[in-house]
Amino acid sequence: MKVLLLGGDGYLGWPTAMYLSLRGHRVGVVDNFAKRRWEMELNVEPLMPIRTLHDRVDAWRELTGTEIELFVADLRNYGAVEGMLEAFRPDALVHYGEQPSAPYSMIDHNRAVFTQVNNVTGTLNVLWAMRQTAPECHLVKLGTMGEYGTPNIDIEEGFIEIEHKGRRDVLPFPCQPGSFYHLSKVHDSHNMRFACRVWKMAATDLHQGVVYGIETDETRLDDRLATSFHYDEVFGTAINRFCVQAIAGIPLTVYGRGGQSRGFLNIRDTLRCVELAILNPAKPGEYRVFNQFTETFNVTQLAELVAAQARQLGIPAEVAEVKNPRVELEEHYYNPAHTKLLRLGLQPHFLSDVLLHSMLQQIEKFKHRIKRDIILPRVKWNGERSELEELKLMWAGA
Amino acid sequence: MKVLLLGGDGYLGWPTAMYLSLRGHRVGVVDNFAKRRWEMELNVEPLMPIRTLHDRVDAWRELTGTEIELFVADLRNYGAVEGMLEAFRPDALVHYGEQPSAPYSMIDHNRAVFTQVNNVTGTLNVLWAMRQTAPECHLVKLGTMGEYGTPNIDIEEGFIEIEHKGRRDVLPFPCQPGSFYHLSKVHDSHNMRFACRVWKMAATDLHQGVVYGIETDETRLDDRLATSFHYDEVFGTAINRFCVQAIAGIPLTVYGRGGQSRGFLNIRDTLRCVELAILNPAKPGEYRVFNQFTETFNVTQLAELVAAQARQLGIPAEVAEVKNPRVELEEHYYNPAHTKLLRLGLQPHFLSDVLLHSMLQQIEKFKHRIKRDIILPRVKWNGERSELEELKLMWAGA
Repeated sequence: MKVLLLGGDGYLGWPTAMYLSLRGHRVGVVDNFAKRRWEMELNVEPLMPIRTLHDRVDAWRELTGTEIELFVADLRNYGAVEGMLEAFRPDALVHYGEQPSAPYSMIDHNRAVFTQVNNVTGTLNVLWAMRQTAPECHLVKLGTMGEYGTPNIDIEEGFIEIEHKGRRDVLPFPCQPGSFYHLSKVHDSHNMRFACRVWKMAATDLHQGVVYGIETDETRLDDRLATSFHYDEVFGTAINRFCVQAIAGIPLTVYGRGGQSRGFLNIRDTLRCVELAILNPAKPGEYRVFNQFTETFNVTQLAELVAAQARQLGIPAEVAEVKNPRVELEEHYYNPAHTKLLRLGLQPHFLSDVLLHSMLQQIEKFKHRIKRDIILPRVKWNGERSELEELKLMWAGA
Repeated sequence: MKVLLLGGDGYLGWPTAMYLSLRGHRVGVVDNFAKRRWEMELNVEPLMPIRTLHDRVDAWRELTGTEIELFVADLRNYGAVEGMLEAFRPDALVHYGEQPSAPYSMIDHNRAVFTQVNNVTGTLNVLWAMRQTAPECHLVKLGTMGEYGTPNIDIEEGFIEIEHKGRRDVLPFPCQPGSFYHLSKVHDSHNMRFACRVWKMAATDLHQGVVYGIETDETRLDDRLATSFHYDEVFGTAINRFCVQAIAGIPLTVYGRGGQSRGFLNIRDTLRCVELAILNPAKPGEYRVFNQFTETFNVTQLAELVAAQARQLGIPAEVAEVKNPRVELEEHYYNPAHTKLLRLGLQPHFLSDVLLHSMLQQIEKFKHRIKRDIILPRVKWNGERSELEELKLMWAGA
């Protein structure tokens, strides 16, 4: 299949491109390298040095003899999106190309508006360009489990049958997102569902949990193929950050009481889930949602797991609570469905001691690159001006 | 109370400003006159000649001795929004300032993206500026009943108690909006609910039905105070358009089978609803939704009502079906709740023969200004290029 992957320079985008390329798909990647600049603004960087996307595409060709086509484009430029679809004619379009961080969207007014305008405009441009030039292409879009929030009922996959005053309907699952970033994903989901209904397009919305992991079978082929593993407060995620804190010899920081439960998955499973979605496309007119995660944990459980594994390696890791910078429930019911991808054949890589052991060892090699002052949360949800906001972090434009 | 009204040049904005001004509130109005330019692009105009907002404010002062303060500003300009809040210090902010037309948002790609970016950015700017400079101000925002779509269950006011697999929660009512415009209102609603939760702001989201009517007690004081009554396919609404078709001697056109049911209200009731919301504000941290309409009709019923009344005036009106330009259910269940505003004291002006009679007579006076070729639908929902799109209606910028 021909797969065009938006956001090909990212933590998930680049490994997905290699994974699909190795399995015989013709892959194109698109990026505008915006995230590289956001990293610069915040003075954060991935743990490992990351080559440019051009260099990685070259290395991939050299190692595998396979071409990944590279497009440099901003998805807010409609002409560019339409032009790429006309040039590449994809069977599937995998859309990772958005501002991906909740804390980034909460730093200040400019970044909140930017996140929503950037993400919503990019997805609208993709939908309209597909309508115009590729109406049979299957859109596979990265959403988030965070679109649902934490309701006091079981979370279903995108839709829920509701009985109310003696009548029934199957309706979109109510959303209670927890940041301007998560809200942007909810907006995208509504826009996609509408486009599928009125234009008979086919789309899969992957409501993904929190991804962890530092490498995939493909990144392991060569150092030049590494993907951007973040551990900072803005772009890092829980397990990844805990592992880095353990290696850095600082406490593993849990936000508030740590009873926040979330769905998690290994980065390897992300790649397989996307492939399964592509190989089993939605039908014309169908908008479907897959809840994409393999296990649920609460944050304290995770920190304890990582700490225990670190201690086995002789590292005296400890877990500490910090004031929760977010406004969220710290103890709540959480039981989201996640059967659709399993039914398509997903065989999960569960979080294991072996995996954590290997992650910690990988991170150890780059211990000298850890910036200790970018890990603790400075962005606040509750309306207090964030420390980042005070830090002359003015808006440098999009 | 001090009330700042965003979108003060519009069909509802200007009458609301006068209504509140006459009742002793100190009123400021804000507009950037964007809609005047959209009218120019499409070569549509209100039935009656409409003075500039400056002239209307002057006429109001001359007639009543009361000042309505005028701000010229684009809500996408954050500095302007914050500046106005600092200068005016409102107790309540009434937000009508959005692109208000579903067909406009469906004309082409540019107008779809513009509608969402314009509306979402404006509301985000309002929320952030309130957080910074007026956290105790009450936001009263115009939403639409179209946010809900037409589910097969009773529609509640913003939230629904769901029992699911033995557990219960009260959750946002699921949304199935029917155009990129309606989607923009859903995005706004999600953003507002979040801001109320994390910043303890107070907001009322008025999910309004379809408004009809040509005048209010205040517009009747002087011809110079008229409000922009639209009857064209893009900015006109069902009853207003039917009345104009009757007077123009052309068939009253129903889209498809005409079984589409909607909530309707008289423009006079819009003003009273907004006043009731202001006088009975939401509490800090509260996001509430009022379904703002007084009766439901289906489109064929309405057309027949108008035609019957026209015939009583000696006009040989007839009803005709046209191919539905929209993608929507043409027969469906519809039973939305609307008790909250009644409980606050709303006394509805129901649609009556007397009202229709008076509207038809008013329109008769301006019969010579009716443009017959702007009434039938040219904008299509289904992905066919619209006739307007073919008409060299390029995007002239925002």
